[in-house]
Amino acid sequence: MKVSPFNSPIFRQLIEFKSNTYTYILGCHKTGKAVIIDPVVDTVSRDVQLLKDLKLDLIYGLNTHVHADHITGTNGLKSAFPSMKSVLCSKSGGQADKYVSDGEVIDIGGLKLEVRETPGHTNGCVTYVEHTLKSAFTGDALLIRKCGRTDFQQGNSSALYDSVHKKIFTLPEDYLIYVGHNYDGILQTSVWEEKNLNPRLTKSKEEFVEFMKNLKLDYPKQIDAAVPANMVDGKDH
Amino acid sequence: MKVSPFNSPIFRQLIEFKSNTYTYILGCHKTGKAVIIDPVVDTVSRDVQLLKDLKLDLIYGLNTHVHADHITGTNGLKSAFPSMKSVLCSKSGGQADKYVSDGEVIDIGGLKLEVRETPGHTNGCVTYVEHTLKSAFTGDALLIRKCGRTDFQQGNSSALYDSVHKKIFTLPEDYLIYVGHNYDGILQTSVWEEKNLNPRLTKSKEEFVEFMKNLKLDYPKQIDAAVPANMVDGKDH
Ligand SMILES: [Fe+2]
Ligand SMILES: [Fe+2]
Repeated sequence: MKVSPFNSPIFRQLIEFKSNTYTYILGCHKTGKAVIIDPVVDTVSRDVQLLKDLKLDLIYGLNTHVHADHITGTNGLKSAFPSMKSVLCSKSGGQADKYVSDGEVIDIGGLKLEVRETPGHTNGCVTYVEHTLKSAFTGDALLIRKCGRTDFQQGNSSALYDSVHKKIFTLPEDYLIYVGHNYDGILQTSVWEEKNLNPRLTKSKEEFVEFMKNLKLDYPKQIDAAVPANMVDGKDH
Repeated sequence: MKVSPFNSPIFRQLIEFKSNTYTYILGCHKTGKAVIIDPVVDTVSRDVQLLKDLKLDLIYGLNTHVHADHITGTNGLKSAFPSMKSVLCSKSGGQADKYVSDGEVIDIGGLKLEVRETPGHTNGCVTYVEHTLKSAFTGDALLIRKCGRTDFQQGNSSALYDSVHKKIFTLPEDYLIYVGHNYDGILQTSVWEEKNLNPRLTKSKEEFVEFMKNLKLDYPKQIDAAVPANMVDGKDH
């Protein structure tokens, strides 16, 4: 039985405007199964409606890490998709229905998301790589011409540098990179661009560590509400 | 000589947050030539930088129509790409370097944009269809689960209904639709979705015309500045 009206994998990028978070839906047109990456609590009803419109059954709600800037939508999505399992890295320290670690694969049929641990922004950051779509979902590990901050949540700039160079820049150069946020309205980048043009990650490791030490960023506005909530899968808000 | 670092067509969606406008870059990796669809004056420097980063030479700056909600970036882009030609529909009444009409093709090598006239939101609205990418760029003719307003700029809801049904819904159902705006943070849709789920365009033509008559929308905030500027290709602001 054909469940999907489409003849090829379903891929949708979405944006939550308040926290400027990018959310992704990946669906298999053969099995009708789907995952969502980094959903936001504020846009749960939009995402539920879209998944239903696309005739997709949400199997996994993946968080690339315990977010500090928004509350995850994974808990809210379960009301509409009760069998959905929330997923976090085993090293994240947060609550989830399923824990993943390096090398594991989230399989929904035609689409398979390979887990690559990319710590540095937090201990439990993962990048999901989907080879059919030639795409990597990096969360806040690698951002467009930037990277996630390393001054909170077990941040470690030396670890972040290694993660990006070993786990992301080793992908084919034409792989697209889909990040967690971008404040300039750019929606995607590629391995080639970041490997060659990212002003931070093209530095030497020593220069990068020094640069990150001197960023002097503001205290994250939502961190005190978001992190405790996200540690328990978004249940606590 | 290989000009591009990529082995397949380059496609980028961008967002201008103030007017919530979606801009698109399509580039041929073989010729290094590119077009931009609906650029915004406020984000010209971002778009120039990205085009240069991607090693693309901007050949055409396409406006799907004379916009009422933002000033086009076509004129600004010429400072960086002096040989770029701005493009409008011959029926738009606006100034441009090149005019297109139904059935014409904008050819940049590996990518070819077929012009489909889709009047109704304005007289001179066009949809660009790129068959390699299985994508249509509809501007404000067809929006996600909505459509452009028809109460200004020669708006004609009966014409809009026919445009969408004859020129867009006749495309294969799995073609993606990239629109001019969306205020819910949804970034793409498909022919199948809009044909089956668009609450306005699934009505009968009579019901649609009646519905559009009763929308009672606010006067467009930027129209008095934007339309005169866009009539002369964004030169007048
Ligand atoms: Fe983060
Ligand atoms: Fe418009």
